[in-house]
Amino acid sequence: MLIVKKFGGSSVANAERINHVARTITDSYKEGNQVVVVLSAQGDTTDELIEKAMEINPDASKREMDMLLATGEQQSVALMAMAIEKLGYPVISLNAFQCHIYSTSNYSNARIKEISTERINNELAKKNIVIITGFQGVNRHLDITTLGRGGSDTSAVALAAKLGADLCEIYTDVDGVYTCDPRLVKNAVKLEEITYDEMLELASLGAKVLHNRSVELAKKYNVNLVVRSSMTDAEGTVVKEESKLEKMLVNGVAVDKDVARIAVVGIKDEPGSAFKIFSLLGKEKISVDLIIQSIGRELSKDISFTVSKGDMEKAVEILNKNADRIGFKEISYNDDVAKVSVVGAGMATNPGVAAAMFEATFDAGINVKMISTSEIKISILVSAKDADAAAAAIHDKFITRAMQHRN
Amino acid sequence: MLIVKKFGGSSVANAERINHVARTITDSYKEGNQVVVVLSAQGDTTDELIEKAMEINPDASKREMDMLLATGEQQSVALMAMAIEKLGYPVISLNAFQCHIYSTSNYSNARIKEISTERINNELAKKNIVIITGFQGVNRHLDITTLGRGGSDTSAVALAAKLGADLCEIYTDVDGVYTCDPRLVKNAVKLEEITYDEMLELASLGAKVLHNRSVELAKKYNVNLVVRSSMTDAEGTVVKEESKLEKMLVNGVAVDKDVARIAVVGIKDEPGSAFKIFSLLGKEKISVDLIIQSIGRELSKDISFTVSKGDMEKAVEILNKNADRIGFKEISYNDDVAKVSVVGAGMATNPGVAAAMFEATFDAGINVKMISTSEIKISILVSAKDADAAAAAIHDKFITRAMQHRN
Repeated sequence: MLIVKKFGGSSVANAERINHVARTITDSYKEGNQVVVVLSAQGDTTDELIEKAMEINPDASKREMDMLLATGEQQSVALMAMAIEKLGYPVISLNAFQCHIYSTSNYSNARIKEISTERINNELAKKNIVIITGFQGVNRHLDITTLGRGGSDTSAVALAAKLGADLCEIYTDVDGVYTCDPRLVKNAVKLEEITYDEMLELASLGAKVLHNRSVELAKKYNVNLVVRSSMTDAEGTVVKEESKLEKMLVNGVAVDKDVARIAVVGIKDEPGSAFKIFSLLGKEKISVDLIIQSIGRELSKDISFTVSKGDMEKAVEILNKNADRIGFKEISYNDDVAKVSVVGAGMATNPGVAAAMFEATFDAGINVKMISTSEIKISILVSAKDADAAAAAIHDKFITRAMQHRN
Repeated sequence: MLIVKKFGGSSVANAERINHVARTITDSYKEGNQVVVVLSAQGDTTDELIEKAMEINPDASKREMDMLLATGEQQSVALMAMAIEKLGYPVISLNAFQCHIYSTSNYSNARIKEISTERINNELAKKNIVIITGFQGVNRHLDITTLGRGGSDTSAVALAAKLGADLCEIYTDVDGVYTCDPRLVKNAVKLEEITYDEMLELASLGAKVLHNRSVELAKKYNVNLVVRSSMTDAEGTVVKEESKLEKMLVNGVAVDKDVARIAVVGIKDEPGSAFKIFSLLGKEKISVDLIIQSIGRELSKDISFTVSKGDMEKAVEILNKNADRIGFKEISYNDDVAKVSVVGAGMATNPGVAAAMFEATFDAGINVKMISTSEIKISILVSAKDADAAAAAIHDKFITRAMQHRN
């Protein structure tokens, strides 16, 4: 089998962990597999480099920042190769330009455009274990780019797709994808399998196990993805096109606390006012999530929406600055809220899910402020203080009972 | 003017020094010059990276070590570019693969083979200040190599040669080339000019201002070289083909304390015994410096020579192991010695120099153990404890008096 394995920064944070991961890698190689490994920078390296840069120039260009940060991954691949050499296996480390990972020129948030796999295949043919820098690429001028948040996951999946790997294993500090964050809900259960779409909804809802871009890419190229622990041998969670398991109604409950709510009240009921609001925010790269529009008094309407906490003040400022163009009475906002979502491929065909969700929160005495639904998820906005209780109540209603039912 | 400026690790050790160097660079750019800058890794970065590697694998391959160490220079060029951006000047950092510095594959001690200057010239044409990683290259497989000791000086001179620069300025922590180490001899005088050949002798004699390889390259391509301080604006020392100044008899006095002396006593007086000794040592990459052969008793001869302190034990071991093949009575050795040398282009034509040198040491009551001469230098071996006094006495005899005579 050709296997791509990806390890994050905490898995290679120090010599001891590097040695542990080196054994995981060589164990797989010993079994006769071809092994390609993608690594992030060691533990806090990236933060330390950013700090150094900030001391010199807080407004440094993204081009130079990428040039600086890319050294972190280059250090980890070299150190990992040394650890594997010590175990007596043939190995070579490669950075993005050596294995021709070409990206767009969008520094700090570049997209992979093309990977030319000749060098990697040559090294595999020489029986080498190949260790590759994640998170980075080079643009057409051979300038170094980085791929933004979750970049190393994306590198791993892109390499797996391009190499036609049989498996892409993402090693994390959890041992798989859970029905809910185990720290929030003690009955949370590890899933054996989950579909790409469900994983996408969970990732974008703050489950933080896999970055969205990597899951999208895996779905596009049908990469066999496994999320598993770098610390234990436990079987992980398989992410794939179609789950073999009997579809559970709900596959996961996610809590996102990085949410703020903004209400624009008393908008004149004219066509285009919603468009004005969201195009102004879009121009400033502020992402808007849940949106509700309601009819207010005297031919006016109210529009409420959520943004990430960090964007709240900027969004309010933009709206106030354009008050005349938009035409509204007032803005209210608060960041004391959280979003709780349930995700499941079985949901679209089952109208009872929303009702059961509200029953769960009602029974728990929790007030729901906003609602948004898609084919495979339902999100609700609650007070921040109610978030964990809401997640537990919903998780209990759907998942714990479904599991009991199955066993 | 097109100027190449090279700054060493201590000149970029922290944010404050980086900012200082950034101003030196932009001052030169403001005067209308095209500026290419070559940097070493920050202060202790290289040592820290070596330590990390040692913890994981003390026998790591040189290929992976170079992959690791090359990140140090990449970090300094990115940080320097950020500092220059902050001052408001156009700048770009480039690493060895981006500016096509091709080297041999001799990891950890590679030689530059070819530099393709297209990218650098493009950036200069765009009015950019160009900041380049010293000490590194890529081989024909695009694997990263490092150039060994003095590598950044070599990078700077090679770039200056290839770009046809008008000037190559090597910034160090001293403000030029002195007639002797100012810490040893308080009358030491800074030279305005020195020839390549004299500089070569001084460099190889432990003057530590410029690495030999860079001076050889400068001589070969007739690069206009200046050694100057990164801390002050003082004029440095110009290193060039022919000095304009009236030739002084002696241009510098150098002390090298990394010396050990080995005497092979009672060798049978047959042809080839010296050859056997030095070919055995050569095979083990042990460099031999001063050599003296003298006639011993009963048709035997003695051969004494010097090696660096670190090679002494190995050399003695090799000789003892091959005692039968060589055929000698005994070996004596000690590392309590030092080499003091005088260098000057005017020396070859003046037979009085050696005599004056021995007069100086004799007057100072210092015993000379070995002597070696070349066209432009005379070296003597003395006890380690006498080294500084010998340097001072010789310096006083030649240089202080010559300077007084000129003024």
